[in-house]
Amino acid sequence: MTLIATALTQHFEQALPLQSGSVLPSYSLSYETYGSLNADRSNAVLICHALNASHHVAGIYLNQDGTPQPRSEGWWDNMIGPGKPVDTDRFFVIGVNNLGSCFGSSGPTHTNPATGEAWGADFPVVTVEDWVNAQARLLDVLGIRQLAAVMGGSLGGMQTLSWTLQFPDRVRHAVVVASAPNLTAENIAFNEVARRAIVTDPDFHGGHYLRHGTVPKRGLRIARMIGHITYLSDDVMNDKFGRQLRPLVNDVKQAARADDQPALARLAYQYTTQGVEFEIESYLRHQGDKFSEYFDANTYLLITRALDYFDPARAHGGDLARALAPAKASFLLVSFTTDWRFSPARSREMVRALLKNRRDVSYAEIDAPHGHDAFLLEDPRYLSAVRAYFDHRVGATSAGGQTS
Amino acid sequence: MTLIATALTQHFEQALPLQSGSVLPSYSLSYETYGSLNADRSNAVLICHALNASHHVAGIYLNQDGTPQPRSEGWWDNMIGPGKPVDTDRFFVIGVNNLGSCFGSSGPTHTNPATGEAWGADFPVVTVEDWVNAQARLLDVLGIRQLAAVMGGSLGGMQTLSWTLQFPDRVRHAVVVASAPNLTAENIAFNEVARRAIVTDPDFHGGHYLRHGTVPKRGLRIARMIGHITYLSDDVMNDKFGRQLRPLVNDVKQAARADDQPALARLAYQYTTQGVEFEIESYLRHQGDKFSEYFDANTYLLITRALDYFDPARAHGGDLARALAPAKASFLLVSFTTDWRFSPARSREMVRALLKNRRDVSYAEIDAPHGHDAFLLEDPRYLSAVRAYFDHRVGATSAGGQTS
Repeated sequence: MTLIATALTQHFEQALPLQSGSVLPSYSLSYETYGSLNADRSNAVLICHALNASHHVAGIYLNQDGTPQPRSEGWWDNMIGPGKPVDTDRFFVIGVNNLGSCFGSSGPTHTNPATGEAWGADFPVVTVEDWVNAQARLLDVLGIRQLAAVMGGSLGGMQTLSWTLQFPDRVRHAVVVASAPNLTAENIAFNEVARRAIVTDPDFHGGHYLRHGTVPKRGLRIARMIGHITYLSDDVMNDKFGRQLRPLVNDVKQAARADDQPALARLAYQYTTQGVEFEIESYLRHQGDKFSEYFDANTYLLITRALDYFDPARAHGGDLARALAPAKASFLLVSFTTDWRFSPARSREMVRALLKNRRDVSYAEIDAPHGHDAFLLEDPRYLSAVRAYFDHRVGATSAGGQTS
Repeated sequence: MTLIATALTQHFEQALPLQSGSVLPSYSLSYETYGSLNADRSNAVLICHALNASHHVAGIYLNQDGTPQPRSEGWWDNMIGPGKPVDTDRFFVIGVNNLGSCFGSSGPTHTNPATGEAWGADFPVVTVEDWVNAQARLLDVLGIRQLAAVMGGSLGGMQTLSWTLQFPDRVRHAVVVASAPNLTAENIAFNEVARRAIVTDPDFHGGHYLRHGTVPKRGLRIARMIGHITYLSDDVMNDKFGRQLRPLVNDVKQAARADDQPALARLAYQYTTQGVEFEIESYLRHQGDKFSEYFDANTYLLITRALDYFDPARAHGGDLARALAPAKASFLLVSFTTDWRFSPARSREMVRALLKNRRDVSYAEIDAPHGHDAFLLEDPRYLSAVRAYFDHRVGATSAGGQTS
């Protein structure tokens, strides 16, 4: 059965106080839901998204004529849907777009009510904690007092962890995938280079590029290329691209067929500093180009900063166990062996801190070659671990959850 | 005893054929020498440099009035000098600047004799093999038929390896530090992002920025920031910077003394997407700014491309053992455990390939926290390993080498 998704919008007139001290006067959240909320409203699962994703978590969109929109699957469609690990025949799943995004919820490309112009760089800095507060208000509107589970990968995992601290009584289970209790200096460093590439692009205009009719595409391309390198493992890049040359594949084949050795030698390297020589270069340029066409530069700055700032242990002198003491949820944590951006060591830190608090913790360390990206991919052991947790743990405590 | 260095220049009128098929019509090499060549010219050690270094390997420069120039130590001054691991009381050490550099040898900022203008982007693409050929001609001029040793780290290690293949009879010992037999896809990817940042800087003008009176500083800054992140280990970045905040250290101290909790909370995060928040950001920006003041953008492109292209196994269907068969030298290889840019695994590949050829190989894997940068730093075990090799192996076969 194909899951059909429909984007919804909830407007909030009540101002949202932010961690920075600023206040967002009014705002909208885009969201989607899949499956049905049961009678006692106990089977809701909230999905939190990472850097460049959105509320469109699962299913596909239809065109106005009812035909499926091609390539419109949600970003976690392999995980969430009818009969999938997070089974929408059983759970009521909510995807919500975060504040500051460029995919629907209030963000820098929207109008600042105070000026009548686009917010641009004036959109207030938002944090993981702010996002969770905004998500909680959406649940209030939906009449959901307590979530069966919150779940997210990477930055989404940080929101999941923060849910258990900000609203311990509203979360029964927390599924934290490929995440960390804060960023390392190296993580912050990669974010900072990406931000500098954007901010120093002459088309950025201090973040008010919309007023100037420009888009800092050069910076966005560089930011995306850096991101892609750090999402993949060295191994998978070698498997996928290695030192394979990009150009003239047909010419090379032709020369090989003709056993034309001098031609082969000539075709091998082009000796260019500005052109494309290796497949990996072509791939990265393509990813950068695509990204620069649809992603908002100010959103990129805001979301990477939310990553940088997240650090629940900070208010406790760096003691993560003390920071996690308020959590009451049961936890499943998942990490991937080749993820060097959010390494298994970071997940183990959270496991240890939770165990110190005698919390109920399951932990799966998946031996996967794909680096950080693994959390979005089709890995049978990973999907089985999440399925088992939802079947036997989340489902068991989701009183009255519908069974398919 | 302080070693005094003097930069020398050797001009070559004889054209240099390059691997790309281009020819460099005439060229100059900047170089320095330390110590004395012995009577039978058997104690010469050639040092090959990496990305942003030069012929100024050891010693200090004097001002015209004979006073020492402050902070003018050569880039490997902890390794090379009187009584140091590569002892200039015993060996005649040569540092040479590579073609395409911006530190003296012919490069993109020099005049193209064919046009009378700066070469800029028209300077031909040079490879590790081309550099070695040029270095060999310098040795011819200096009257050195055979080197006691060639030594280099990183890209310098690639030149060292290439020496043993291009001129097997001219090298008795090869010391290859923190290097690799080729770049991985991830290495190439980081180089490519840095190049794209430079090439897409509007001040780059297709590489002819000198004619336009501009310098692509934005791109150079980004390139350098990326480089710095990859030269350091995650651990050392956490030790050195961690999540430490940059701004207002004195304000924070004052608030702490006054036990002004609200002020402390306020001072902690500034909530800025464009400003500096963490120490690591400040460090990277500073490194980027410094680099953009002195380094030539076309040189950056050329040198990173030389790294990308180096791959002696390529002509042998990827079989490194076959590629290294011509080598006759004895080898010392050194790697550092936390170097993720040129990891120990890459050095072990070379060790295995050399052993397959029954070459004489010593290998030291140094447990050092500093990442790739370790090869330039003061690590007692590292320096001892090199000292022992030069004392007992290079010195032993350097017939007639002077002893101090």
